Amino acid sequence: MGSPVHRVSLGDTWSRQVNPDIERERNIQSFNVERLTNILDGRAENTALRRKVESIIHSDPKCSLKDNYFMTQNECYEAAIQRKFHIQTIAKCLGWSENSPEFFYAYRAVSGEVALTIHSIFLQALRSLGSEEQIAKWAPLCNNFQIITTYAQTELGHGTYLQGLETEATYDAATQEFVVHSPTMTATKWWPGDLGRSATHALVQAQLICSGARQGMHAFIVPIRSLEDHTPLPGITVGDIGPKMGFDCTDHGFLRLDHVRIPRDNMLSRFAQVLPDGTYLKLGKLQINYLSMVITRVNLLWGEVTPILQKACVIAIRYSVIRRQSCLRPSDPEAKVLDHQTQQQKLFPQLATAYAFHFLTSNLLEFFHSSYDAILNKDFSLLPEMAGFLEKNYLQAQASQDSTSQRSLPQSVAYLTAADLAKCPAQKAADFLHPQLYTKAWAHVAARLIKDSAHHLQTLMQSGADRYEAWNQTTVMHIQAAKAHCHYVSVKNFTETLDKLENEPAIQQVLKRLCDLYALHGILTNSGDFLHDGFLSGAQVDAVRTAYLDLLPLIRKDAILLTDAFDFMDQSLNSALGCYDGNVYERLFEWAQRSPTNTQGNPAYEKYLRPLLQSSRAKL
Amino acid sequence: MGSPVHRVSLGDTWSRQVNPDIERERNIQSFNVERLTNILDGRAENTALRRKVESIIHSDPKCSLKDNYFMTQNECYEAAIQRKFHIQTIAKCLGWSENSPEFFYAYRAVSGEVALTIHSIFLQALRSLGSEEQIAKWAPLCNNFQIITTYAQTELGHGTYLQGLETEATYDAATQEFVVHSPTMTATKWWPGDLGRSATHALVQAQLICSGARQGMHAFIVPIRSLEDHTPLPGITVGDIGPKMGFDCTDHGFLRLDHVRIPRDNMLSRFAQVLPDGTYLKLGKLQINYLSMVITRVNLLWGEVTPILQKACVIAIRYSVIRRQSCLRPSDPEAKVLDHQTQQQKLFPQLATAYAFHFLTSNLLEFFHSSYDAILNKDFSLLPEMAGFLEKNYLQAQASQDSTSQRSLPQSVAYLTAADLAKCPAQKAADFLHPQLYTKAWAHVAARLIKDSAHHLQTLMQSGADRYEAWNQTTVMHIQAAKAHCHYVSVKNFTETLDKLENEPAIQQVLKRLCDLYALHGILTNSGDFLHDGFLSGAQVDAVRTAYLDLLPLIRKDAILLTDAFDFMDQSLNSALGCYDGNVYERLFEWAQRSPTNTQGNPAYEKYLRPLLQSSRAKL
Repeated sequence: MGSPVHRVSLGDTWSRQVNPDIERERNIQSFNVERLTNILDGRAENTALRRKVESIIHSDPKCSLKDNYFMTQNECYEAAIQRKFHIQTIAKCLGWSENSPEFFYAYRAVSGEVALTIHSIFLQALRSLGSEEQIAKWAPLCNNFQIITTYAQTELGHGTYLQGLETEATYDAATQEFVVHSPTMTATKWWPGDLGRSATHALVQAQLICSGARQGMHAFIVPIRSLEDHTPLPGITVGDIGPKMGFDCTDHGFLRLDHVRIPRDNMLSRFAQVLPDGTYLKLGKLQINYLSMVITRVNLLWGEVTPILQKACVIAIRYSVIRRQSCLRPSDPEAKVLDHQTQQQKLFPQLATAYAFHFLTSNLLEFFHSSYDAILNKDFSLLPEMAGFLEKNYLQAQASQDSTSQRSLPQSVAYLTAADLAKCPAQKAADFLHPQLYTKAWAHVAARLIKDSAHHLQTLMQSGADRYEAWNQTTVMHIQAAKAHCHYVSVKNFTETLDKLENEPAIQQVLKRLCDLYALHGILTNSGDFLHDGFLSGAQVDAVRTAYLDLLPLIRKDAILLTDAFDFMDQSLNSALGCYDGNVYERLFEWAQRSPTNTQGNPAYEKYLRPLLQSSRAKL
Repeated sequence: MGSPVHRVSLGDTWSRQVNPDIERERNIQSFNVERLTNILDGRAENTALRRKVESIIHSDPKCSLKDNYFMTQNECYEAAIQRKFHIQTIAKCLGWSENSPEFFYAYRAVSGEVALTIHSIFLQALRSLGSEEQIAKWAPLCNNFQIITTYAQTELGHGTYLQGLETEATYDAATQEFVVHSPTMTATKWWPGDLGRSATHALVQAQLICSGARQGMHAFIVPIRSLEDHTPLPGITVGDIGPKMGFDCTDHGFLRLDHVRIPRDNMLSRFAQVLPDGTYLKLGKLQINYLSMVITRVNLLWGEVTPILQKACVIAIRYSVIRRQSCLRPSDPEAKVLDHQTQQQKLFPQLATAYAFHFLTSNLLEFFHSSYDAILNKDFSLLPEMAGFLEKNYLQAQASQDSTSQRSLPQSVAYLTAADLAKCPAQKAADFLHPQLYTKAWAHVAARLIKDSAHHLQTLMQSGADRYEAWNQTTVMHIQAAKAHCHYVSVKNFTETLDKLENEPAIQQVLKRLCDLYALHGILTNSGDFLHDGFLSGAQVDAVRTAYLDLLPLIRKDAILLTDAFDFMDQSLNSALGCYDGNVYERLFEWAQRSPTNTQGNPAYEKYLRPLLQSSRAKL
């Protein structure tokens, strides 16, 4: 098992000893933390590789996040570029290839606070939408950083609704070029990362116009800055969109194109081509354009959203065993805040969600990557599962029940045709600790809400509303149904993960408590949906609450170990409150001393405070 | 009625005309916006005074918030000090007194982005806890800025639990002084505003020790910085705690005291005194110490929290009638996002809450100020109503029902003894638009949850848990009950506000829709609490949802006028998206140009980007 010492920040004198309040939490080992870390990493070899990469990154002071909180936006950007540069240099030395686990772990080590990450989205889009020749030409340029790339989709006035984008690419058969142009102010590209100050090339999503006809969105590679001196090329207006909360290290940018000419070959042409004479050939579905953004979002869930939630849990839970507030009994010392039921209620459902999402996104990633490969091979059968398809499947399920031939539904919505109970059979609190029972409860509620929203839509249409009006009047219900479906899927996935841990009974037990908590907390916060049709009675909801509240002190015992298992180094957490050694107050006090508010003097005193204090005094 | 022109930012060429998309929203005036503004301000004279103050402040470029988003923490602080200095100068010229409406409006004009505001908390505490002589001595020094003050309660290891504070003030009868001391690192005062770089005097909450006995928390005035040159006085370690989200303009600070001696007179002595020989005299209740923080929090609700919610609604709703996304019908242009039901669902409950809280905090403020005056006159009868008192009142209500003598409950919990229905009598969606009906529904649920949590506590104690353990095991339930109580109080207060508007039928009608929405949205998001005991049936909850969804398009029509009525000037909103004229995109684009990321060059290019681009090229 890995020594905990490797997690402790170096260089701070007080960090040589661990705060006894957190040390005691680690004494009772009801399960093997190292094994759980291996499970979260996929396998023990991954843990070892990850730690090797992390120790390389953390030993390089140029990759440090230490003074991040004290930087201006410009300083953050420069530090993020510097980190990227050094990681590239390290990668070259050690032979890490792009998209290797080493790179993923290196980014994890610096908490994603690194520049030029849109690079990989450009590559993803290139591989999704480019021909084999285009991939062969552009991918190496990109991988070797001969060009710096961005993905320019959203506009000042337009977001994910691709059809609404205004940027135009008009084919000029005379020169065999596209003329890429922003016809309005709202057509200005807005938000693409690495665009503000870094990128030399943009993958621009634009309306294709050829032979006078509009053919919808297509992707074009547009050079935007000189490879000689980085100045904007003719027709290009480009810059940074300014400060944003939590994104200081990325230069999100804007881009206006004034009749910029690019060669015909720069339109990505796996699924559509423009022939030299302007003839348009369609080789796939238009929705394919969404693909790279969908994949990007699943990658974000896995690589950014879930780790951020995990880190938030680590920081909050570690701090909560150091921080004390109020006495639980008059004669006692102040209690650790984590011993207050209200604090457990705040943090443990989040911890359970962090685990649920970890296992869920890991599976989603597998599904999307296999679908993605199929689609690149022009097999579009899995495409519908990536869009809002619950209502269609409900109607299909209903149709197939009416007919004699039962057609099978996609696996994620199979519950729509499964046998259902009108009432939950649970008799007492303990019954709600059966994964099968609460998974069925979630399936029941998801199916009912999907049914209700589909029926509501039909009722509105039968009473005269047209399809579009009826749809807009039921979107709140559809979203409620979709959320219940997601809850069902994540509960089911968590229980299936538990099933695979039968050789690890201690870990299985502690994760089962989190799974139970996740499912029951969801039932309690949505209890109206379960009570609505009498599936649960009021007394049963009380039993759910009892089971839920009884889980809190059980999870409390293992809370620190469960957060340790995520195995974030202090350097990556970059948090005074969340450090492994629990020396919260010492670190907070020392970090404050380094703030520019303490190191840069106070010109406001001479300018304003002294005159204020003295003008009054003179007057008296 | 006030001309809308006064709301439009000056100096931008495009702002001479209003975006037609927002102009159309203002054409159908279903009510008089100016009258609603007057109602929100209290009366028309207040609106006039507020606008006069705002125009004075906004015409002074030194009070501008314009470049706030581009500043470092140090620059923000300096700008906030500058603003305070200029507002003080203006106030002196125009004869505004501290705590006058003029000052309140001036702070509103600069969105509270001003320094030295803890001043008023110091004064509040001085008036609460100081003797008449102490008030006479210190208040003028404070009002004339001969001293700059802060209120130092929270410590590195301690927050609102006053008894836990570690700072000590030990009386030395030999010199008639208190020795104020931080005995541990966690005793370091942490977070007080204006302490980091500004304050010369701190009101320090500390454990009083006299004649060897600990007497609990008392307040002491401690000089911390030289009035000559602003350097820390002997024994004082003071500084800024560094960056915090959203609070850059305030220098929250830390303070360590190393055996700092202050005169006996510096202990505030309205409710407790130390005689020269060290005899301790108690003249009031210890809880009195909480008073100034409680009042401060109600003031924060009124002066900061509610306006922030209101401004968020103004910005989001104005932007939502400019921003377009997706077509509601295939042949239509993209729809304003506010026409999507999901966007209405996101924003209108918030708008309704903004109105609900405005009316609620206005009333709370009155209640607290009258209670405060009573307490200063040593009448403590209202003190219990300021602490967690629901359970006690339920038990009292129960006791009085059992006995023949009915004792009356405080007005806010009178519903605990009111006649209650077991089932809601509503038959159809329209029935849920009766304020009496939904107010009773909230009373029913609040009473049931209070009852349940009190019974649960008793059950745990009867089954062997001691009182403290049982309390900690029911705090989640107590909080749920307390939230329902607050919901009931805010719904009831909103309906009572409507009753007072019978002479303004058009405004009454539009506000009633918001009140209905506020109450029904609360029922829907907590539907489990209403279904639990069968008070509502599933069919009735469906009717609530129908009533709720039907309200959305009605509020939609008036949404812009309802946000205009808050009457925030563009300079105070300081938002590209929320400007009155709706020229969102022009302003966003222009503001971005001013960002330091576009004006300060890009040293990272020469240092890292060029070497990265060229090292690869050389290699090929």
